[in-house]
Amino acid sequence: MKQHNVISSEMLYSHWQGHRSLTRRVIEAFPEKDLYQFSIGGMRPFSELAMEMIKIALPGIEGIVSGKWEDMESMPTPETKKEILELWDKVTERIDALWPQIPDGRFEVVEAAFGLYEYPIYASLLYFIDNEIHHRGQGYVYLRALGLTPPPFWEREEQGGLM
Amino acid sequence: MKQHNVISSEMLYSHWQGHRSLTRRVIEAFPEKDLYQFSIGGMRPFSELAMEMIKIALPGIEGIVSGKWEDMESMPTPETKKEILELWDKVTERIDALWPQIPDGRFEVVEAAFGLYEYPIYASLLYFIDNEIHHRGQGYVYLRALGLTPPPFWEREEQGGLM
Repeated sequence: MKQHNVISSEMLYSHWQGHRSLTRRVIEAFPEKDLYQFSIGGMRPFSELAMEMIKIALPGIEGIVSGKWEDMESMPTPETKKEILELWDKVTERIDALWPQIPDGRFEVVEAAFGLYEYPIYASLLYFIDNEIHHRGQGYVYLRALGLTPPPFWEREEQGGLM
Repeated sequence: MKQHNVISSEMLYSHWQGHRSLTRRVIEAFPEKDLYQFSIGGMRPFSELAMEMIKIALPGIEGIVSGKWEDMESMPTPETKKEILELWDKVTERIDALWPQIPDGRFEVVEAAFGLYEYPIYASLLYFIDNEIHHRGQGYVYLRALGLTPPPFWEREEQGGLM
């Protein structure tokens, strides 16, 4: 089978922001205290998992556009859910603003994301998204263990679209 | 920004089978009894989550190739881990065999996967993969709650490749 590209950069954008929209609602679904304190089996609380996603997505979109991969590991976790959500929204806006600046052909460039992972940019972006789905799935278990109902997995938009 | 496709069908194949390779190792990591009985917060045991993945992937690859979307909901869960893994491997082989038969242009066709979800085929495939990552992430929590160490999330190949 010959090489044939089937997914567009626009689709990647919608895919990423759609997943981020769902994750935002998962953060919202946590009671403030549990967001910071509840965990299972020695895992991190969901506040820390959400911060990992932020610390990938924010420098991630900058790196995708510019090739500069900033390490934000040391960014402190905000002390309230409201502030985490504000940070989340700031990342959403940053992705919206920077995405149109991604140079043509950029997704196929092989480059060490965060100086570590030598893959085409599209593969790094898929990895960022997969990592978010993975940890968000863990958040679903936390919510269920707390007796709470998570938002439906298939709802990716505020408006209730599937993807 | 103009429409520009950046991900190939070959990449989608590697992406899917890479994730499935990791999920297979997560199934393997469960003690037999816990695979069938352990759960948190009223969720399904991992045997049932793995079966959901199988019941999507097997008719999924057939549907992607042929447009015939078979409902396998009623397929019974095998009674042993060994048999679930054998079924998993059968699906892996089926994907390997059928993937080269996917017609050119097929991924862009809008079609109701399983008669339900009216999206381009590539979006349905991404949904199958996302659903697997989501439930596998839940399996990671089960394993941690059982005091077991799951395989590293970033290892997608038996050989230890990143993606």
